[in-house]
Amino acid sequence: MEKLENRKWKVLSSEYLAHEPWFTVRREKVQLPNGNIVPSWYVFEFPTWIDVIAVTRDGHFVMISQYRHALGETHYELPAGVCDPTDASPETAARRELLEETGYGNGNWSLFMTVSPNPTNHTNKSYTYLATDVEKVSPQHTEPTEDIRIHLLTESEVRELLDSGEIVQALHAAPLWKYFALKR
Amino acid sequence: MEKLENRKWKVLSSEYLAHEPWFTVRREKVQLPNGNIVPSWYVFEFPTWIDVIAVTRDGHFVMISQYRHALGETHYELPAGVCDPTDASPETAARRELLEETGYGNGNWSLFMTVSPNPTNHTNKSYTYLATDVEKVSPQHTEPTEDIRIHLLTESEVRELLDSGEIVQALHAAPLWKYFALKR
Repeated sequence: MEKLENRKWKVLSSEYLAHEPWFTVRREKVQLPNGNIVPSWYVFEFPTWIDVIAVTRDGHFVMISQYRHALGETHYELPAGVCDPTDASPETAARRELLEETGYGNGNWSLFMTVSPNPTNHTNKSYTYLATDVEKVSPQHTEPTEDIRIHLLTESEVRELLDSGEIVQALHAAPLWKYFALKR
Repeated sequence: MEKLENRKWKVLSSEYLAHEPWFTVRREKVQLPNGNIVPSWYVFEFPTWIDVIAVTRDGHFVMISQYRHALGETHYELPAGVCDPTDASPETAARRELLEETGYGNGNWSLFMTVSPNPTNHTNKSYTYLATDVEKVSPQHTEPTEDIRIHLLTESEVRELLDSGEIVQALHAAPLWKYFALKR
């Protein structure tokens, strides 16, 4: 299989249109290797994101549900969040978010998958951790602006959610389908 | 398994910050069912997106590669694009994009997967079609601002790309992993 050459574009000019949490955007004028120019390419800067496939010793998946305002729907999701500047690593962030959102911790952790939310216009990557043998270690600690419910689901229930298209977040559907593909 | 109630937020105010192609953003002040208020929630409006798992009669996957400016990397991808207002349906858009980007057409088409690029801040959904027995029917017709290479890969080469993490776009990794999970 061909090893791809990175056919980088040249940035002719760049300006910030906004610089706020969850909304940091640059507009860039870029030139392709073929010489053609795109006058406005929008680049959304986001921090590293993480999510966790967390499974208890007795085989239950620690899932959450919450309302997602842009789509206007409430769905099952993986526990997930953002790397804070104070997090030593993406795994630290993932352990923190799992604990805050669900109260689950401990267990055996490994990096399971790395994806880009959208390489076209997002600067960041998103890391999925697989955490097995997690256990309830504390109550849930959410922000006042979070309304997160916890659901302990069997593996076949998670598969049912995937098969029915109920896991709509692409960042979560990708690692969960990978999980089931590797279980062959 | 619990059927989730849709715990909608109330929009207290809403204003457009930008209204351009690839950059249409609203800022909304919202109230959660628990009464708490979020002063600024950013909603990115995008049209419906589509992509295609296209397989030839002799079992080759029609993949593309292109440089993606926000991430700064060049990767293998599914042929993909945006529903234009003139497209009669997402499938029409998917057939058009496959033809434009690769010159492949015909074959047997079905909707394979529906995801949200990010339900938190994206309004749109993305549809993946599975197209089998596609064939080369025309030359590639790209825009001057596109630099898209076509790659015909075997199924085991596609699986290798997935296993090595080379398919970074979450919107493409999700349906491709689903494809391999269903092949069990």
